[in-house]
Amino acid sequence: MKKMKIGILGYGNLGKGVECAIKSNPDMELCAIYTRRNPDTITPLTEGVKVLSATALDEKQDIDVLILCGGSATDLPVQTPKYCAMYNVVDSFDNHSKIHEHFKKVDSIAKSSGTVATISVGWDPGLFSLSRAVFSSALPEGVNYTFWGKGVSQGHSDAIRRIEGVLDARQYTVPVDSALNRVRSGDTPDLTTREKHTRECFVVANENADLSRIENEIKTMPGYFADYDTTVTFVSKEELEKNHHGLPHGGTVIRTGKLGWDLDDKATCEFKLTLDSNPEFTSSILVSYARATYRLAEEGAYGCKTILDIPVAYASPIGGEDLIKSLL
Amino acid sequence: MKKMKIGILGYGNLGKGVECAIKSNPDMELCAIYTRRNPDTITPLTEGVKVLSATALDEKQDIDVLILCGGSATDLPVQTPKYCAMYNVVDSFDNHSKIHEHFKKVDSIAKSSGTVATISVGWDPGLFSLSRAVFSSALPEGVNYTFWGKGVSQGHSDAIRRIEGVLDARQYTVPVDSALNRVRSGDTPDLTTREKHTRECFVVANENADLSRIENEIKTMPGYFADYDTTVTFVSKEELEKNHHGLPHGGTVIRTGKLGWDLDDKATCEFKLTLDSNPEFTSSILVSYARATYRLAEEGAYGCKTILDIPVAYASPIGGEDLIKSLL
Repeated sequence: MKKMKIGILGYGNLGKGVECAIKSNPDMELCAIYTRRNPDTITPLTEGVKVLSATALDEKQDIDVLILCGGSATDLPVQTPKYCAMYNVVDSFDNHSKIHEHFKKVDSIAKSSGTVATISVGWDPGLFSLSRAVFSSALPEGVNYTFWGKGVSQGHSDAIRRIEGVLDARQYTVPVDSALNRVRSGDTPDLTTREKHTRECFVVANENADLSRIENEIKTMPGYFADYDTTVTFVSKEELEKNHHGLPHGGTVIRTGKLGWDLDDKATCEFKLTLDSNPEFTSSILVSYARATYRLAEEGAYGCKTILDIPVAYASPIGGEDLIKSLL
Repeated sequence: MKKMKIGILGYGNLGKGVECAIKSNPDMELCAIYTRRNPDTITPLTEGVKVLSATALDEKQDIDVLILCGGSATDLPVQTPKYCAMYNVVDSFDNHSKIHEHFKKVDSIAKSSGTVATISVGWDPGLFSLSRAVFSSALPEGVNYTFWGKGVSQGHSDAIRRIEGVLDARQYTVPVDSALNRVRSGDTPDLTTREKHTRECFVVANENADLSRIENEIKTMPGYFADYDTTVTFVSKEELEKNHHGLPHGGTVIRTGKLGWDLDDKATCEFKLTLDSNPEFTSSILVSYARATYRLAEEGAYGCKTILDIPVAYASPIGGEDLIKSLL
């Protein structure tokens, strides 16, 4: 069997997760890790894999798909358009309000370059989007709800760390059980931001810091915490490292809809994720859609694709008729 | 907007459900109901819709997609191959062990006829298959579990009705909570048939019937009840009609997998359905995949397709870029 040749750009949590996921997908081979850091400072887990400077990508590398493992804020808006001009790529761009803009930019370059660029692959956007779309098609008369957590939000943790006097922080997004259970029971309430999630913050402060000022700055921070019921707990550095070192996450997509001539019958669809490691799961989905990207490119497809445009069979390690026999 | 022209073959629970679902999908128009019964005996809910003999289909009708609403035991194995020679069709063929055989037969005819035939659309096979495939791709190191119920199994209810002395019956398939919760918690036990589901039977017997014989015949029936813990409750005709007249169903697909270099991190994916009406939900999915079938045919595709081969965007009433903006 010819293995798909995979390159990774960026060796943070996501890049490391991709490396691990490739180990569980024997039809793939990790050819090289590309980094903006000094390659000598990186020791990959995979024996024998090359670590090269990101600039090496400017000369066409022998890889089938390049998995872009940068962040959505500043890396991917530049990297995906740049590298889809030369490579089939997959990214996990997750800034929902800018996906459409990202799509259009990437689509135009991938189309003129004859490459496939699969964007916004992960769990939200990603598997959650797939669920929202499938549920909405099956139940046109209905309402979608998405709850996140309990899990660590890295963006919110970073926002706390920028406050003066804060040494470290970890923020959990927590769905409100009563709201979740109401929706789960088939109810379709209008829920405000505050009614759906709470935010729990664990903060390590500088020993001379004014704790009440920090707490107040967190709770009133617009866009991040002001619209939520937020709790702030100050902990020691040791306590944070011991009890809050992981990156667990998860969430739930629920659609409740109505069926029948007079819409008298209820139907509820729910998709739920519980993850010990948010980046590892995102990475594993990226790897399965790297397979889909490769297969699309082999078929002669090109342009920007999302998870909604790709048959799930393309992402599966199981081939055509075996897939029918084993999973249909 | 040009509406898709839909025909329904068969006006039982599923056909009626399709009629209702079309009402909720304004891009479609129900053109005709085809029946093997005397058309005069059928009064459709939709005003003005034609009711024609199934034989009318032998002369090419002006419809874009024919939705086949027969049963999997004897109707669809004949109807799908027959009608895909003339029409784009969708069926809900649900005999898992024979899907591959059905696929091959239908694929060969649809390919030579230039039509699209989408088979085994519903929730299992259907949305559950989609979940099993997506979960397996995202978590290659893992185990899939499917639990059904609580819900009415029509096949099992029919099997009880064939016992001498039984006037009517309703059988519920019930998942075993302790097994479900074990799997949900991330455990990957080997579960026997008996450990996953119980079967609850409500039976109306002839007044002179030997109830203990009936109970024994049910509990020992091979293939249906012998491998399960089965309870049999005798009820009056009135009680059955009052308390057991609906066709609720549902179920859960769960995959627990392991991630990370040493597979130290768990991830659990769950898809859960709770349905007041099993046939209405199946019908609504059939209608959304009638849309996908139409779009595939418009693009020039042909052959047999399953839900795993079709991008979910094709089934959605929402168009391309709006889908990205609203659901991705």
